[in-house]
Amino acid sequence: MSRPIDFWFSIGSTYTYLTVMRIGDVTRETGVSFRWRPFDVRSIMIEMNNIPFSTKPIKASYMWRDIERRAAMYGITWSGIPPYPLKDLAFANRIALIGAREGWCADYVAAVYRRWFGRGEDASMAPNITDSLKEVGQEPRRVIELAGTDQINTELDNQTNIARQLGIFGAPTFAVGSEIFWGDDRLDDAIAWQREQDSSLAS
Amino acid sequence: MSRPIDFWFSIGSTYTYLTVMRIGDVTRETGVSFRWRPFDVRSIMIEMNNIPFSTKPIKASYMWRDIERRAAMYGITWSGIPPYPLKDLAFANRIALIGAREGWCADYVAAVYRRWFGRGEDASMAPNITDSLKEVGQEPRRVIELAGTDQINTELDNQTNIARQLGIFGAPTFAVGSEIFWGDDRLDDAIAWQREQDSSLAS
Repeated sequence: MSRPIDFWFSIGSTYTYLTVMRIGDVTRETGVSFRWRPFDVRSIMIEMNNIPFSTKPIKASYMWRDIERRAAMYGITWSGIPPYPLKDLAFANRIALIGAREGWCADYVAAVYRRWFGRGEDASMAPNITDSLKEVGQEPRRVIELAGTDQINTELDNQTNIARQLGIFGAPTFAVGSEIFWGDDRLDDAIAWQREQDSSLAS
Repeated sequence: MSRPIDFWFSIGSTYTYLTVMRIGDVTRETGVSFRWRPFDVRSIMIEMNNIPFSTKPIKASYMWRDIERRAAMYGITWSGIPPYPLKDLAFANRIALIGAREGWCADYVAAVYRRWFGRGEDASMAPNITDSLKEVGQEPRRVIELAGTDQINTELDNQTNIARQLGIFGAPTFAVGSEIFWGDDRLDDAIAWQREQDSSLAS
């Protein structure tokens, strides 16, 4: 069994929807596992002045169409363009980070994305976060309070710093050691890279 | 035989190197043909304030690494990062446009990219353009003079307008009717889309 690939993501990233919805199948088909690493992609993008969509309507319109087509290709539900951007991306990812510490991150992120893309409910606010927390067996009040603490705030900053040091500038990004692969459409490349590393270690 | 896919490109686009080097094999393997459509991507990107690399060193560094890895995946030569950006992207593409009118575009663009990426020679200047023109049997003086005329200048503007009206904002872009697919990594999607169109027309 090879080491898991680091799956760096932010709830709020649009293409991350595709990854979240298919990553379970990818693991079943390939045997590759993933470590879910939430971070705050928005703060990195702002500091780089990397604004791909909000001031670029033609590119944004293409992005949604591309996601719609690729969702169809993967057999993933598409219910139209969801609300974008999220009201509070950092808060959404502080909850994901608690999930990563406590073991319910993958299920929670899938739940929150299904409500965001499927029902048009902002993934950083109630009712999405409360319903998604309940769905994965967590008490919303406890988690939301914890997400507001300095400790979790600092921990998300720390994770974002690790991402920054790896050279990550967008989400999703797959990291195999120091080698990074940006975009849902680079997941196959990341898996191929890891296999090559494993086979050269074995030989 | 299905209609050709429009291959919108600009000499000067980095990822277009991958497409130019593999498109012949793609045609042999799939039977899909391509119409080469040079345009001036830079003018569209400037008007959209879409500046992905020149002010974003971390993203640019990733882009080169990604191209290097994907070149290896496709079996395409990689000789290090070439000079970038080109001194005169519009001029480079006025020559490609003459090639498209006269029937030597694909061979010329492959020649100019091989010198740009393989030998580090700017694809908009001598000696690259003169040597590449000679390689495809064209007299450099004649073509370079023609590329400086108002007629060719206007024709490149017209092509760029057609691209703009299709919603194209980057290169390479593959167009199947009004459906556009941006990036070398969307070539498979474009081919799949065209096949679906063909089979629904046939049924």
